[in-house]
Amino acid sequence: MNTFLSLAAARCSVRSYTDRTVEPKKIEHCLEAARLAPSACNAQPWKFIAVTNPELKNEIAAYTFDPLLSFNRFTHTAPVLIVIVTEKPLIVAQIGAALKNRDFNLIDVGIAAEHICLAAADEGLGTCMIGWFNERAVKKLLHIPSRKRIGLLITLGYPAEGYARPKVRKSKNDVISFNQY
Amino acid sequence: MNTFLSLAAARCSVRSYTDRTVEPKKIEHCLEAARLAPSACNAQPWKFIAVTNPELKNEIAAYTFDPLLSFNRFTHTAPVLIVIVTEKPLIVAQIGAALKNRDFNLIDVGIAAEHICLAAADEGLGTCMIGWFNERAVKKLLHIPSRKRIGLLITLGYPAEGYARPKVRKSKNDVISFNQY
Repeated sequence: MNTFLSLAAARCSVRSYTDRTVEPKKIEHCLEAARLAPSACNAQPWKFIAVTNPELKNEIAAYTFDPLLSFNRFTHTAPVLIVIVTEKPLIVAQIGAALKNRDFNLIDVGIAAEHICLAAADEGLGTCMIGWFNERAVKKLLHIPSRKRIGLLITLGYPAEGYARPKVRKSKNDVISFNQY
Repeated sequence: MNTFLSLAAARCSVRSYTDRTVEPKKIEHCLEAARLAPSACNAQPWKFIAVTNPELKNEIAAYTFDPLLSFNRFTHTAPVLIVIVTEKPLIVAQIGAALKNRDFNLIDVGIAAEHICLAAADEGLGTCMIGWFNERAVKKLLHIPSRKRIGLLITLGYPAEGYARPKVRKSKNDVISFNQY
């Protein structure tokens, strides 16, 4: 990549994958990028589970699909799923979150998840963050303690041809201002 | 930068800044990176306000400082503050968030905030995310409607010498696993 801005422009949500295996080294790079992510009070309130076993991955993918709403029909095409589990933050972050009514854990999940997606894009891989899934069932499959929460799932793999759609974003005037709202 | 992983490793929270003015082009690059960030259902539930007016910036910085807890004593040294305001997400994201008990808005704030910090690091600038501030007072200063929420503030500027502290992170074994928790 040349600049971060070019990487941010190139990254897009990929909803169709080839069956090419993702090299373990590349999966490790994505997880390492997540491990290095910043978090409130440096609490690092997370664990990252890479699901590479094809049967297990397909079972989880099935739990992201909602036939009624027709959500996430593509997830089984991704060869890897990454599951972000949120862990209890530090006491100081918990108190701050309560006093300020701001759940820093979810902000931290977003940061770490995007590190994974950006590292993947930099490796020529595609990703898509998945927020709709049967949390209880996925926790059971991965032996995640029932009191824990899953923050997000992320699909990971080589994008199928023609996956890229033009990025649709609000205009600068709609989202950026200086010195006042 | 060479790879995303090297950028992620180089980025760190900067709590001391020089008084060097940040070039408008670089501020724009950071805001553009935020504008390009992904979000749940592509709702883009945000506005980004760059506070560059020195008096206004100092007034806001004062509202991030807690003398009792001695938090954020450094914020006034940053020449720029960026304020992320959260906007109402799309109805579909609101329904999903309610059904799945997961506030996607905060995940989105984390993603966009980290785009700003990574773009800044790529430009040789330092940042620090600030989650502790007097929200009501900052909203009033920036004419943000009272029903809106501020997600985060971010300090932005050229790092003072000796700002870098070694990154402290949990080990791979503590946060990464394969196919089970």
